[in-house]
Amino acid sequence: MGRYSEPVSHALKSSKANPAGELALLRRICQRAARGKKNLALKLGIGDDCAILAPPTGEEILVTTDFSLEGRHFRRDWHSPESVGHRTLARGLSDLASMGAKPMAAFLSLALPLSAVKDSHWLDGFLDGLLGLAEACRVPLAGGDTSESPSEHILADIVLLGSAPAGTALRRSGGRAGDLLYCTGTLGGAAVELASLPLSKLRTWSKGETQPHLFPVPRLGVGQKLGQSGKVTACIDISDGLSTDLAHLCNASGVFAEVEAAALPLHPLAAKLPRPAALAAALHGGEDYELLFTAAAAFRMPRSLAGVPITRIGRLLPRRKGKSEVTLMSDDGARRPLEPAGWEHLR
Amino acid sequence: MGRYSEPVSHALKSSKANPAGELALLRRICQRAARGKKNLALKLGIGDDCAILAPPTGEEILVTTDFSLEGRHFRRDWHSPESVGHRTLARGLSDLASMGAKPMAAFLSLALPLSAVKDSHWLDGFLDGLLGLAEACRVPLAGGDTSESPSEHILADIVLLGSAPAGTALRRSGGRAGDLLYCTGTLGGAAVELASLPLSKLRTWSKGETQPHLFPVPRLGVGQKLGQSGKVTACIDISDGLSTDLAHLCNASGVFAEVEAAALPLHPLAAKLPRPAALAAALHGGEDYELLFTAAAAFRMPRSLAGVPITRIGRLLPRRKGKSEVTLMSDDGARRPLEPAGWEHLR
Repeated sequence: MGRYSEPVSHALKSSKANPAGELALLRRICQRAARGKKNLALKLGIGDDCAILAPPTGEEILVTTDFSLEGRHFRRDWHSPESVGHRTLARGLSDLASMGAKPMAAFLSLALPLSAVKDSHWLDGFLDGLLGLAEACRVPLAGGDTSESPSEHILADIVLLGSAPAGTALRRSGGRAGDLLYCTGTLGGAAVELASLPLSKLRTWSKGETQPHLFPVPRLGVGQKLGQSGKVTACIDISDGLSTDLAHLCNASGVFAEVEAAALPLHPLAAKLPRPAALAAALHGGEDYELLFTAAAAFRMPRSLAGVPITRIGRLLPRRKGKSEVTLMSDDGARRPLEPAGWEHLR
Repeated sequence: MGRYSEPVSHALKSSKANPAGELALLRRICQRAARGKKNLALKLGIGDDCAILAPPTGEEILVTTDFSLEGRHFRRDWHSPESVGHRTLARGLSDLASMGAKPMAAFLSLALPLSAVKDSHWLDGFLDGLLGLAEACRVPLAGGDTSESPSEHILADIVLLGSAPAGTALRRSGGRAGDLLYCTGTLGGAAVELASLPLSKLRTWSKGETQPHLFPVPRLGVGQKLGQSGKVTACIDISDGLSTDLAHLCNASGVFAEVEAAALPLHPLAAKLPRPAALAAALHGGEDYELLFTAAAAFRMPRSLAGVPITRIGRLLPRRKGKSEVTLMSDDGARRPLEPAGWEHLR
């Protein structure tokens, strides 16, 4: 019920309330999805009760699901439909990236209020954003569910399946005291861009400027190279903010950590701010979707992977009673506890 | 973000709005899920960015997602929390059953309004229902996402992964003219029970009476036996009503069909009604979650499989221009077109 695979039933079911709307929604998604890239692992996509996937021999399957709910994860007055579609998929892809997996298929559950079903502009933009990123990352939209939303809120839930050679998936839990701590790309850009959204009508983006909040780039290539290297001891994506996600990694690995403020690679948007604000954005700003990972100090980490810069930003320490889980070494060399303080997005 | 795997971040993120609620929600789900049955295919459950599954060698993966949205798929004044939890999982399991798959893992995305987070009664009942069925069907809850709902509606999305030996998954598309048409169990019970829900305070259920709408039983055992038999040409679950789901099967298989009214196995709740109402419930009532399938006429179909009765209810015919896709042979032997008229549940 309510599945992509049952457009006839949808037409019928919705015929009592909404003759054209829900059917149009389904047709549009199916048509657009059918145009997307295929994937050898996908044996049967939209059109039956389940999709069928044949994962590559010797590989394990990785699965993640993420809500994107209007009013919680996005606002229609701040986020364009293209951005919502892009971000919905990017959240799931970043979870695959953080474990070194290659995307295999995406499944989208989408509920739209009647107003947004009738106005195909929003759905078209959303699908442009979602399927554009899907195409770039070679992940087919293989199924999902649709419904009319019970409220005025747009509701999406994305499911990503990926694969990785058995035993190679990166986890949060393998970090050891003495390991060095690295991150990809730059930090703080998404938080600064988010803070500017309510004012964005006053702001013009320079051409070529990245939009780390509205159009984050999941680090799939880097994640896969890190997984293949066999040298990465722990990895997580920075979705809730460095301070919070590092606490997760420490917690799962049973270690403490120290971060060097001077080493943090600031996004150009953050670098423009006064130093304390720039640091706060880099340490606590959410949704940068960079990878945070660790490797033995003896391992010679490349300066970039898959075209993305890698920066050493600290190290792992043994747990010590009475000490902080995470310490920040400030620009002046002083050490202070770094409490997890990831952002509550949109609040 | 917003994942089971990140309770610390949730505690922090929710601390501004709701100090105890969302954290309690996460803790409760994780604790309860951890107590559930394990599954050999599940290598890593709740606690990282993704779950890791190792499907049995030589098997394909089947994936389905289904929304359960308050006001669209259930009502809190009609459905107990236990029923909502049970039905949420049953919808996904029935999709696996219809393709002959064995369940491997479930993923739950759940958004509760603050009122339902604070009152743990609803969540506890929901988890009782969902995890009770999960336990019975040996499917672990391996991950998902949580959020505060942006409205007063409870929002759930269930994802099921299953597996089946490569090439054996049943599809809707293999039916051939001349095949006989079968269904499992009985029909019409869910529709009659649904119609009684607004009056249910006036009604007392007899002990041992099934509750086909509130607690449907997904036909996993039958589905797997049908898949293993290699004799079933097409299969679908009856979620939207026989008339609608048979139209899907005919459409996918490129055939027409004839149903014999006299052969339809009526649920006891439907059998109590006057004949026209009983037939309408069996033909168009949704959510029976029985299987509808076809096999060559020469195949000797058992009268029951996995303890569930199997009934021959009609046959497949060649497509003929100007004729109806599905015909109903009435009790009096007259043939009339059977238009798909599956129920819009809750409308």
